[in-house]
Parts: sequence; C-alpha cells; structure tokens
Amino acid sequence: MSMSRSLRRTNPITLVLAGLLAFGFLFFLLSPSSDKPTSLAQQKHDSAASHPLSPPTSPFRKQTPKPNGQRTPPPVVHYHLNNLTTSSDPVSNRETVLILTPLARFYDSYWENLLRLTYPHELIALGFIIPKTREGNAATTALQAAIAQTQSGPERQRFASITIERQDFDPPIHNQDEAERHKMENQRARRASMARARNSLLFTTLGPATAWVLWLDADIVESPPTLIQDLAAHDKPIIVPNCYQRYVNEDREADVRPYDFNSWQDSTTAQNLAAKMGPDELLLEGYAGLATYRTLMAQIADTTPERDQGMVIPLDGVGGTALLVRAEVHRDGAMFPPFPFYHLIETEGFAKMARRLGWHSWGLPNYFVSPQSLPPKGDGRGLE
Amino acid sequence: MSMSRSLRRTNPITLVLAGLLAFGFLFFLLSPSSDKPTSLAQQKHDSAASHPLSPPTSPFRKQTPKPNGQRTPPPVVHYHLNNLTTSSDPVSNRETVLILTPLARFYDSYWENLLRLTYPHELIALGFIIPKTREGNAATTALQAAIAQTQSGPERQRFASITIERQDFDPPIHNQDEAERHKMENQRARRASMARARNSLLFTTLGPATAWVLWLDADIVESPPTLIQDLAAHDKPIIVPNCYQRYVNEDREADVRPYDFNSWQDSTTAQNLAAKMGPDELLLEGYAGLATYRTLMAQIADTTPERDQGMVIPLDGVGGTALLVRAEVHRDGAMFPPFPFYHLIETEGFAKMARRLGWHSWGLPNYFVSPQSLPPKGDGRGLE
Repeated sequence: MSMSRSLRRTNPITLVLAGLLAFGFLFFLLSPSSDKPTSLAQQKHDSAASHPLSPPTSPFRKQTPKPNGQRTPPPVVHYHLNNLTTSSDPVSNRETVLILTPLARFYDSYWENLLRLTYPHELIALGFIIPKTREGNAATTALQAAIAQTQSGPERQRFASITIERQDFDPPIHNQDEAERHKMENQRARRASMARARNSLLFTTLGPATAWVLWLDADIVESPPTLIQDLAAHDKPIIVPNCYQRYVNEDREADVRPYDFNSWQDSTTAQNLAAKMGPDELLLEGYAGLATYRTLMAQIADTTPERDQGMVIPLDGVGGTALLVRAEVHRDGAMFPPFPFYHLIETEGFAKMARRLGWHSWGLPNYFVSPQSLPPKGDGRGLE
Repeated sequence: MSMSRSLRRTNPITLVLAGLLAFGFLFFLLSPSSDKPTSLAQQKHDSAASHPLSPPTSPFRKQTPKPNGQRTPPPVVHYHLNNLTTSSDPVSNRETVLILTPLARFYDSYWENLLRLTYPHELIALGFIIPKTREGNAATTALQAAIAQTQSGPERQRFASITIERQDFDPPIHNQDEAERHKMENQRARRASMARARNSLLFTTLGPATAWVLWLDADIVESPPTLIQDLAAHDKPIIVPNCYQRYVNEDREADVRPYDFNSWQDSTTAQNLAAKMGPDELLLEGYAGLATYRTLMAQIADTTPERDQGMVIPLDGVGGTALLVRAEVHRDGAMFPPFPFYHLIETEGFAKMARRLGWHSWGLPNYFVSPQSLPPKGDGRGLE
C-alpha cells in the first residue's frame, strides 16, 4: 500500500535540511508602563523576574540604577518556584501561559481573538514559528505590525513577551489545494514538517516557570474569551476543545461543520489495523480506504444552545487547533513525533507519547473553537 | 521474563509525581566586569543580548540608563540569528555551548575539570538538575559555593549563565549498592527517572541561539581541556567519546577499565532478540542472561599512547557520560525516552529517536573522558 513508503527511503538531505533551523530573527517585547503606577503595573512589577537572564517567557523588572552609576556584579538571584502551580484556577494562582502558534498566514481575526482572551495578558507569553517562504515573510510583516500596535497600546492588552522564530526549510507541499493537501501521501510529509516546527518552537521557548502551554493554530479566529480558564478548570494534563467551522449550508443558512478529525477514541478495528502494519506505516484518520471506526470527537458534538459545554471525554488522539497542555507534560519529554510513533504522527503521536509518560488526554466535545470560515487558497492548513 | 513488567502497571501516582517538577529554585549568574574594560569584556559586550528578555542561556548587556532616569518602552529588538552556525570550528564562529549535568553528588574535581575547559567560558551556559533529596541538598550547597567563587573570580573563568533546577521526585532506588543498582529491574526505573530529569533540564534551558549541547555526567572528573573543540571538530550531529575509569589493578599498578557500556553498534542477535520482545520490554546491555553480541565501544578502545584519538565509528546506541549534540537535533524533537522506545531507554533511546529524525550518532573509541576513580557509595550513578 502507498502508506508503506518508508522515512528511511526519504532523501536524507531533505531530512537534514528540514532539521536545520536558522532562526531568521527573534524578538522579545516588553513595555514597562510609561503611565503613572497602577495596580496592574504594580502586579507586573511584583510578578516579574528580577534578573536580566530570566527566561524569555518571563517579564523583566528593570532595576533602579544606582545614583552614582556604579556597576556592581549582580547577586545570585534565587527564583523561589516551590509555589509554582498548574491548577484549575490559574488566574488566582498567577500561573503563566505560553501560547504557541505555527504561523503560515496571518489573520487579523486570529489576533483580535487573541486580544479578546480575558486571561491576564501579563501572564501570557506568545511564541510563533513561521516558514521561510514568501507567504511566511508576508505573515511575519503583518504579525509584527499587529504586535507593535498591541504592545504600545493599552497596558492591559500587552503580552508579557513575544518570540518570533523563522524556520529554514520549505514547506513539504507547494500545491496546497484542498483536495491535494488531503491526499494521504502528502499528509505524512506535511504533518512531519508541522511536528518539527512545533518541536523547535516548544524546545526553545518553554521556560522553567511556564505552567501551561496553549497550542493555538493560526487560523483559529473564534473562541470563548475565557478559553484558557475554561480549559484549565477541568484540571487535566492535556485537554482539547472541539473545532467546528462556520459555513453557509445548501439551504443558504448559517451552519457549522466539524473541522478537526484528530481528536478521537481508539477502536479495536484501528488497533487491529495497526498491529498488521509495518513499523513505518501511519494510521491516518479520514480516508475512505482505511476505515478505523475510531470514535471521532468531531462527530459526537452537540451543537444545540442547551448543550452541556462542560462534558469531558477521554481521548487517545488529539488535534492541535487548540490544545492546552500542562507544562510538566512537555518537560517530561512529550513532543510531537515527526516519525510514525505507534503508527501515529504529530499531535496524535503526541497524545500517544504523553500516554507512555503516564499522562492522559481529554476532550470537550461540546465546547467549540472555530477556524476562519472561508479559508483562502494556500492558508497552510485545513482538515488534518 | 522479569523485564516484561509494564510501565502501565506502575502506580500512576508515581509517574505523576515523577512528572511534577517543582523547581526548588533556579538562578542565573552573570557578573559584568568590575575591572577596567578589557578586550574580553568588549567581546562579552558585543556578543551579549541587548534585551532583558533574552533567553537564560544568553548573557545580558546592561543598557546605560538615561541621565534623566526616564523610563521609555524598549524598542522591538531583533536578534539576527541568520548567521547562527553549528560548525566544526565553533570557537571562531562564536558558537554557544550549553553544558547540561544531572547532578546527584557534587565532586570538586568535576568543577575543576569544567574550569580547565579551554572553550571560551563566555560562550558556555551551564544547566544542572538536582534531585530533591538530602544528598541533593548537599550537592546544591556545594555547587553554589563553587559557582559563587568562580563567578566572582577571574573574568576569563566565568561562565555566561548558570541555571540550577531541583526536581521534586525521589530517586527510584534508595539502596544504591553497586550490585543492587545493576540489577535489571532497577535499571529500568533508574534510567526512566534519569531520562525524565534530562528532558526537564533540556526543555527548559535550550534557547534559540544555542548551537551545541554537551551532556556531561556529574562524576566526569577528567577530560582533555579541549573536549568541546575536539568533539565538534568531527562535524557530527551526535558524537560521544569513550569513558574509561582509572583504577589500581591486581598487580597494584595504575590501570584503566571501561566504564560506560551504552555506546554500541547494533548486532543481528540484538535485533532478533528485540523482534521477539513485547512492546514494553527493554533490551539492556551488560547482563549475562541477555547476550546481545552488540559491538561495544567500551571494548574496542586502544589505550596505548600511540593510539589514533581521531578514529571515529558509527554508533546505534550512545551513553551520556559525555555526549555532544547539535542543538538542532534536540530542537527537531530528539529527547530521552523514559519509556521503551524500540526496546531502548534514556540515552540509548535518544540515539534511536535521533536516527528516526534522520540524525546519525558517532563515537570516538580512542578519545577518553574519565569518571571519579573510586566512586563512594551512593554517588547516584555507575556502569549504565
């Protein structure tokens, strides 16, 4: 079968190039208040790291220079992180959240949705990784403009820090037509590339004081403003909302349809299929020739207004459109396998790897985030 | 067989506790010169990050405060990392090296050996993870004293930054007698715990500008001072020297003996053994009941003075006593599996994972580093 194409048969140069990341540039932003001291400014001051070598995901507190301008060696600075928690009430516990987004195209509506998040922005660090393509250059420019405006705008909107990384390899598929993108043979390369991008971003931005990582795809333009609090409230190591896309149906009525098929519960059929596969084969979801009979979270959603948004189900695979992960899950070693791991790859492989590390994944079938409703050609992602 | 004990049967609480890292404290050190400006100080100034939110592995350049003391929002800072290289001549290319050490016991001779490294210290960041035990507390105290002395000492000796992390779980084995420690059933738990410690340290200290990661075990007390340059000169993604221990032999003569058996080339016998194993079984090296017929690098060393120290061989498994890794290998996702990965764990599993990512491992059979010659009881490591 076509899926048996082995990674080992892939040109090793391709793999090496894919691994060589030249971070085009990287910048960090933090605007100390130029207004008179407010309680927020005081909070920022109190929560900030007091040493310049604090991780990029921590804000920095400028030290008052000595009147005589003398430079003395800084003392050893102790960060008492004993009280660092990852709890169901992250706002009260002042837990830091790192939002990570692989960005192929910049949507204004993505940024606006981010700004609407009610989680205290001074506890949020942002990290982006952008492909080094013409489209990536345009996305970088647009992102920088949005950042410049936000970080010089109202203090309450500003984020604690922002990191942008550029990757140095071409996206695996140049023709990103909808049909083309979903072909199984392309899926493997595309998702391996995405997994590498996620790993690069994760390994370089996660700090010791990060409590949560929220993976948020670049085309997610609509979520409840309380997204972070709502997901964290379930007190799970890994939790994923359902991703539904708005569209106009055949009756010309506004409707929604499932968008991300990577969140699922395993089936005996799928396990039997996997058992017969070679070690380099992938069991991908959503292909007619390969019915897995997995229970897809996308297909068990209740979209009525009276639905139970808090309903939570165990999952064996997760999607990455929006995905909240306790930082210790990643610190334990859970990353996004760019190679078949138990016949799974990328976010689905991540769920399996986390499981091997002792962490369970959970899903919220009736709690929704939504992608761009009419994705333009070449937006870099779609149904995965 | 006893190895079939599954991770799934391990008490999940143990796994969760092992994953919950409370970083006891964490500190970063950087002493700007209090001497008159030297060329080294100038170099440090030029190479340093100019923004306080630079990663912990970068030094920081203090900005001259404005005379009127006015605070203005910092500008967007661009780090032009296009020219970041990972080359066979890292000194000339000013490549940053992150030395990572899981530390159970502090040896003065470890620190002295570190200080003797001729690689420019201002390009070296250090990271430690220490268990939260009584022995770990003692190690932390001793390490801090050594750091305080070095970082306030001659400028040329000082390292760019130092991070100490405390882990919040007990070591898996309390009785660490030599015989006890080497029992196969203990090996799995011990190495899973070590893998988790390595991952926590790696995920939280790796920065976007890190070029190389040198894993160096806490009991390595002797290496050529040019260790980093020598290993990097081979221009390999992953390279490991041989680890030989000094001892007094039966004839009361100074002698050496192999110490680390985790660097090896695979054998057909081992592959056949692995093929018959259940997914949760480990193929560990050095047990009489499980002859693998792998080619162990420890057993093919030439210890004569006229040996070819530059001889390099391909490896399928690597040890972690001293291990130089290109940062992009880790950024790609290569970590230390705490679970059986192709029947391998920790550093051996790392080599396999890197291989799945397209990166090869290499060894230097005739180039030596040496551990403490008479390890006291309970030093936390031995033959692995």
